[in-house]
Amino acid sequence: MAGDGSDQRALQYEQTLMYGRYTQELGVYAKEEAARLRESGQRRSVRDRSRTLDLLEYDKGRCAKCRICTVRCQKFLISRVGEDWIFLILLGLLMALVSWVVDFCIAICLQAQKWMYGGLDSNVFLQYLAWVTYPVVLITFSAGFTQILAPQAVGSGIPEMKTILRGVVLKEYLTFKTFVAKVIGLTCALGSGMPLGKEGPFVHIASLCAALLSKFMSLFGGIYENESRNIEMLAAACAVGVGCCFAAPIGGVLFSIEVTSTFFAVRNYWRGFFAATFSAFIFRVLAVWNRDEETITALFKTRFRLDFPFDLQELPAFAVIGIASGFGGALFVYLNRLIVQFMRKQKVINKFLMKKRLLYPALVTLVLSTLTFPPGFGQFMAGKLTQKEALVTLLDNRTWAKQGIAEEFDYIGNAQAWRHPQVNVFVTLVLFIVMKFWMSALAITIPVPSGAFMPVFVIGAAFGRLVGESMAAWFPDGIHTDGTIYPIVPGGYAVVGAAALSGAVTHTVSTAVIVFELTGQISHILPVMIAVILANAVAQSLQPSLYDSIIRIKKLPYLPELGWGHHEKYNIRVEDIMVRDVRYITLNCCYRDLHNVLLTGQLKTLALVESAESMILLGSIERAQLQSLLSQQLGRARRLQYIRERAVEEKKRLSIVSDPASDDNGSQRTSQEVRFQISTEESSFSPTRPVPHKPLKPALKRPSVVERPTELPTSPHDHSGIGLKNLFCSSPDAEALEKNNNMESLMSPDIRRSSKRVRISVVDDEDVEDDMTIREIAEWEERQLDEQVNFNNCKIDPAPFQLVERTSLHKTHTIFSLLGLDHAYVTSIGRLIGVVSLKELRKAIEGSVTVKGVKVRPPLASFRDSGTSSSENETTELHKLWDRHKSMSLPRESTPSESEEKSQ
Amino acid sequence: MAGDGSDQRALQYEQTLMYGRYTQELGVYAKEEAARLRESGQRRSVRDRSRTLDLLEYDKGRCAKCRICTVRCQKFLISRVGEDWIFLILLGLLMALVSWVVDFCIAICLQAQKWMYGGLDSNVFLQYLAWVTYPVVLITFSAGFTQILAPQAVGSGIPEMKTILRGVVLKEYLTFKTFVAKVIGLTCALGSGMPLGKEGPFVHIASLCAALLSKFMSLFGGIYENESRNIEMLAAACAVGVGCCFAAPIGGVLFSIEVTSTFFAVRNYWRGFFAATFSAFIFRVLAVWNRDEETITALFKTRFRLDFPFDLQELPAFAVIGIASGFGGALFVYLNRLIVQFMRKQKVINKFLMKKRLLYPALVTLVLSTLTFPPGFGQFMAGKLTQKEALVTLLDNRTWAKQGIAEEFDYIGNAQAWRHPQVNVFVTLVLFIVMKFWMSALAITIPVPSGAFMPVFVIGAAFGRLVGESMAAWFPDGIHTDGTIYPIVPGGYAVVGAAALSGAVTHTVSTAVIVFELTGQISHILPVMIAVILANAVAQSLQPSLYDSIIRIKKLPYLPELGWGHHEKYNIRVEDIMVRDVRYITLNCCYRDLHNVLLTGQLKTLALVESAESMILLGSIERAQLQSLLSQQLGRARRLQYIRERAVEEKKRLSIVSDPASDDNGSQRTSQEVRFQISTEESSFSPTRPVPHKPLKPALKRPSVVERPTELPTSPHDHSGIGLKNLFCSSPDAEALEKNNNMESLMSPDIRRSSKRVRISVVDDEDVEDDMTIREIAEWEERQLDEQVNFNNCKIDPAPFQLVERTSLHKTHTIFSLLGLDHAYVTSIGRLIGVVSLKELRKAIEGSVTVKGVKVRPPLASFRDSGTSSSENETTELHKLWDRHKSMSLPRESTPSESEEKSQ
Repeated sequence: MAGDGSDQRALQYEQTLMYGRYTQELGVYAKEEAARLRESGQRRSVRDRSRTLDLLEYDKGRCAKCRICTVRCQKFLISRVGEDWIFLILLGLLMALVSWVVDFCIAICLQAQKWMYGGLDSNVFLQYLAWVTYPVVLITFSAGFTQILAPQAVGSGIPEMKTILRGVVLKEYLTFKTFVAKVIGLTCALGSGMPLGKEGPFVHIASLCAALLSKFMSLFGGIYENESRNIEMLAAACAVGVGCCFAAPIGGVLFSIEVTSTFFAVRNYWRGFFAATFSAFIFRVLAVWNRDEETITALFKTRFRLDFPFDLQELPAFAVIGIASGFGGALFVYLNRLIVQFMRKQKVINKFLMKKRLLYPALVTLVLSTLTFPPGFGQFMAGKLTQKEALVTLLDNRTWAKQGIAEEFDYIGNAQAWRHPQVNVFVTLVLFIVMKFWMSALAITIPVPSGAFMPVFVIGAAFGRLVGESMAAWFPDGIHTDGTIYPIVPGGYAVVGAAALSGAVTHTVSTAVIVFELTGQISHILPVMIAVILANAVAQSLQPSLYDSIIRIKKLPYLPELGWGHHEKYNIRVEDIMVRDVRYITLNCCYRDLHNVLLTGQLKTLALVESAESMILLGSIERAQLQSLLSQQLGRARRLQYIRERAVEEKKRLSIVSDPASDDNGSQRTSQEVRFQISTEESSFSPTRPVPHKPLKPALKRPSVVERPTELPTSPHDHSGIGLKNLFCSSPDAEALEKNNNMESLMSPDIRRSSKRVRISVVDDEDVEDDMTIREIAEWEERQLDEQVNFNNCKIDPAPFQLVERTSLHKTHTIFSLLGLDHAYVTSIGRLIGVVSLKELRKAIEGSVTVKGVKVRPPLASFRDSGTSSSENETTELHKLWDRHKSMSLPRESTPSESEEKSQ
Repeated sequence: MAGDGSDQRALQYEQTLMYGRYTQELGVYAKEEAARLRESGQRRSVRDRSRTLDLLEYDKGRCAKCRICTVRCQKFLISRVGEDWIFLILLGLLMALVSWVVDFCIAICLQAQKWMYGGLDSNVFLQYLAWVTYPVVLITFSAGFTQILAPQAVGSGIPEMKTILRGVVLKEYLTFKTFVAKVIGLTCALGSGMPLGKEGPFVHIASLCAALLSKFMSLFGGIYENESRNIEMLAAACAVGVGCCFAAPIGGVLFSIEVTSTFFAVRNYWRGFFAATFSAFIFRVLAVWNRDEETITALFKTRFRLDFPFDLQELPAFAVIGIASGFGGALFVYLNRLIVQFMRKQKVINKFLMKKRLLYPALVTLVLSTLTFPPGFGQFMAGKLTQKEALVTLLDNRTWAKQGIAEEFDYIGNAQAWRHPQVNVFVTLVLFIVMKFWMSALAITIPVPSGAFMPVFVIGAAFGRLVGESMAAWFPDGIHTDGTIYPIVPGGYAVVGAAALSGAVTHTVSTAVIVFELTGQISHILPVMIAVILANAVAQSLQPSLYDSIIRIKKLPYLPELGWGHHEKYNIRVEDIMVRDVRYITLNCCYRDLHNVLLTGQLKTLALVESAESMILLGSIERAQLQSLLSQQLGRARRLQYIRERAVEEKKRLSIVSDPASDDNGSQRTSQEVRFQISTEESSFSPTRPVPHKPLKPALKRPSVVERPTELPTSPHDHSGIGLKNLFCSSPDAEALEKNNNMESLMSPDIRRSSKRVRISVVDDEDVEDDMTIREIAEWEERQLDEQVNFNNCKIDPAPFQLVERTSLHKTHTIFSLLGLDHAYVTSIGRLIGVVSLKELRKAIEGSVTVKGVKVRPPLASFRDSGTSSSENETTELHKLWDRHKSMSLPRESTPSESEEKSQ
């Protein structure tokens, strides 16, 4: 790992440039919750009762009743803290405050830049320096700060939240550090004036808030530790994130549903509405209190006429906006991916950039802000307007280009930026659209917390405005034929365009609702809906959504959606895609079989069948469980006990054997044990843990990948990302599992390289002297391996998910996404005949599976294949990790699955 | 059944008054779809290719290419017909047309009434007669027409759709007859001017449309027969129903989700949006083409000022509206149920009413229209306004009660109806609210197709208006302190009130969105959201939603929702509620065991375990399968074969036994067979089917219950209501199952009473003479019963749903509602230890289960208990059916579970 330094580091740099990280797929933890709750509930009530009694004794004289009443009230309040609505209100309040503070800081930053730029109007060069330095400093700081504190905070966060809500545990994604990094990083990034958005990060921030609040609230009651509740709260948090960002509660709920979920519980929808409304309300109330607004209104209020918003004959123009936005959205996603892939491929650039980690953000910012410099090229593209100002002017209900009529529209305020003495307003708009398009696609690759929604929204509005102005120029008196003249409202077109383009990029229809809530007018509902639907239809058939694209770029685990009307999907069956060679263990197997299975396979869970002949599926066992079984069987404690017993026996027989070679033996025995990849620790709490869990300290120079090995073992206390899958098994000994998970760093192959670590723990339990020779130990272990496995203390999931061989792909997909499964066994009358995992399913859906001679491929399969395979060599690392971490082994170890991986 | 005539009929009457019917819970049909599709696809492509070749031969001379091109286009178009979006567009188009035509007819009906009333203004008595007769005739016709054609069309339809989408097959609910009855009945009912709505029925009509369209489209391609697709289409149809009714696509989608689903696939949401938007668009375009509107605008357009819609200090008033609406909504649901239960309890009224079936609707209509007679009491409650007119006036943005200022608001047009020379406008409003409240609750109990949404919406608007007018009177200059005077807009309060009350009654928050789309203004978003959420919070803690209340009144199968923040739910476990005494069959059991299990149990599916000792669960078998196994073993064909073999043997031995008593034997043997409840038919196609399936012909005099016995056997061709449950098993011999289902009418105990039927089928297979005596047959059957069961030809579901004993109630509920299960086995390491069905779960959630000494009861459990138990004797029939039909036996047979049922 240290050998091929620069290449490795370049790779790492790229990965932090665009990659997120996840370390661990969802395990089956938190089984104990209900039991613990039950117990703690009883305990607490007993405690409360005794406290009341104490008080009765104490305060007998003075108003005792009053005191008791107070205590009861207190008790009641504390019990109420556990209620959902308290949590949701707190979450909403918190997020509204965060959103408002962030907005406030951003506004100050932007004002400061304007002030600096305005104050230096004597010298263009100084002006340029001020204009350019300011964002470069801010972005560089943001990138550096995020890198140091929490690299997980980079980017939008929506792709990660989608993955987490699917049930995958992404390590370090919901910690306080990430929260701080994301909030501060985002404020600086947006304060720089780059074309970046705050929506995606706010989804992440809200989820962080919910996770932290959950942890905090669990101090008051046990209910917050329940994992399915946590998932529900995270779903609500996503809604709050969007809701408080745009003051759009309804659109926020819908957008978060569309973006993060495949199946949605109506229960959560209620929660989301509640929290998002409260949050949006507080967010807007803060603005009123700050005297920004007179009363609660929309964020980007429009004032289109109510009585005749648009004519029926304008609908084709709206449809054109929709279709063009569809293509534009697909192009944006493609462009963004292209930029990322280009940056990865160019070895020379990479080598240079990876040396100076912050050079890339600084360079990009420099280029972008140079281009928008108002006295320079910026004058042709309204460069001096901030994103917010640009949007406000674009949604203005006055027409800019009125030809033929004398009274020229006087560009007041910010709208002046769109006027240029030499060039037409149409040219300005076209330049704005084209420049902002690639600038936004480039800007969101900067490794700072940033979203793409708002830039895309502004570009869409500009495009709509362009069409609207053209229409207004074409039909100066409006289209309506009979009666009153209703001139065309270009602002309405801008609204439609904004909704359509952002809908196309994110593959959502709820942008329509967001647009209504943002503008405070719903009069254009039908044009907006039509345009959004058309844009979605076009974009969905061309490209994945931006978030799915990032998920693929980051190689996060995902399950592709089934396209619309792909009938072939109903024809593929599980038997066509399942893996028939299932690794299993039998109920009466001996430890040697267990050992062999563990050595050869990489699966996270193994099927337990009754016998190799009957193949009746009894359940599934986690790899960790088996490893702990094996370690218990061959462990030092058991061997010491054996020695003890033997000693007792030998004492009885008065044997004469002395004990030679005790010190020298130690290290050799250790290596002997290592041969079986087994810890010398007991399964119980060990006082000296050989490999302490190092907390992640991502330095500027050696982030992410390098330290991943030690990160790999599950952190079982991270309950936040546990999905529906957990619903399907619960067990009383989750704690034992947790301990075993902690032990896995010992049991994985890396112990072979660092056997010294093991020796540290060998020196305990001193009542018996370990006097066995290597040969003896080997013999003893061989004997132990031949014993039959005792599954009594082993946690078995007795009801792993089962399919039948004739289940269709469509149904399988539904089940996998409904339940958040990652694998399911295929059985036939109780007999295990195969297994299907997310990988097979993904392959089948993406079209690598040939069924009955017909190659089933979704529209974009070809593009996707070529797109990902080109950068395969550099980018598979995380992907490999995904398949690898199931086995808890080291990511850098090459495995047989690698070649297969490449071909995918 | 014919004996206690009048009581029975009274009961039936009540049931059609408020009851729906369902006959069969979801079976496991339609397994063959994918296979059939695959085959037909191959066949079709071959056919197409040969046709192209033919054409090439034929048209060699004349523009052959052109022809081929045409053929290809045609082929392409036909293949496109199978696509979802074509279906959705057709559905949207159809529903928009239906909605528009219905609206048009209603408008004509209402105009006619006004014209009649207006023309007779010389004589008050004649005026009264005209005012009263018209609605009475229309409602009576509607009730009679619906009764005759399809009693299933009665009522809202949303409760039934909720049940259907949960996976329960409601018989006859999605047929063409019901469609016709619903559309015509609804038009007449609404044309009468009664306080009824069109929303609920439109959800049903859209679903009917989707189901019929699906059937029609399946002529073009096989994809329409896929059951999971049908469910998806039904979900989209519900959205279309609301969307085209209010021209509110977004609100429609959300409302239909909230009202009908527990878990929702985002995939369907897209479909719903698409179809609903298209439908709403066409619906509004039709209005433009009809010159009703100049352009596409909202249905009830408001013109509130944009710049300052409301002051922050008005929010408490909005909150008051929300909370009051919450109580009002709960009261409405309670009142409605009270009326239904009162009508059922009063034996005297019942006896009278059941004689004249149409008297109840006529009487109610008479009372209601008398009260609204404009020159009478109607003058105090704006009685002459139709629902639509009332709503338009209530949403008006002018203030009615301006005190202190000279310029009095001149009530123009319809708003004049609210003014009365003697009484204040406040009195009018209060009277309107109070009268309409109970009138609406009463009107929706009339057995015509009708919804409650719109009446409630209007009442809510009136209440909001009342508060708004009071506020305007209180603060004539508005509340805003600094600067300009912004007077209070009572219309805004009306909007808030409408959303809040309808939200409270239906337990939805999406009424907020509907309100925005209906009024075309979103400026009041925060007040509306706050009021709706408060109303929901209050109403949900007091009463079930109106639709759930109807589901309970109708005794449709349901799974209660888990309340908010009921922590106890996390503490109950499956082991606390499961039934431990599971009926099972073992793999090596003999037919006698099978027979005993079938005789004693009533379960629809039976667990198959490996052996009684190991109890390893291998799968589940449907009762029907076992019955057919048994019938094959003991069937006549097999016995005849036995006789044949014996004859061959005896011929070899040249035996001397002759054959006596052949004719007399026949009937006795039949009764012998009946003792084993076994059909004499073979499992293969039989030429003479003894009991032909009678199609349902609901006459006015003998509806529903009487004919249920013959309806009980599954109609396996009704694929429309198949839920996710089917995802979990598929089998190649679904057709065999279907046949067996058809046979069940023979195998159920009623055969005992109608043994004559069986004799009809005995006279076939004449090659061997049935010469066995009763004793011989009995002996032979005893021998047969001792043979081991051969499960080879038996359809086994190899992966029935399994839980573990420690799964929490919360999780179990989630799983049941996610997958639409009706039972799940509880296993422990593959061993079957219990079973949980919907019933146990329902009991546990509704609080009849005591866990660890604490009785867990949701807030309303006490109310619900007393509410349902009072009318238990009369209303349990359908409920019993629900539990009973699992066993496919007759509903009137008493079973041991009856007493248990009562205690529920």
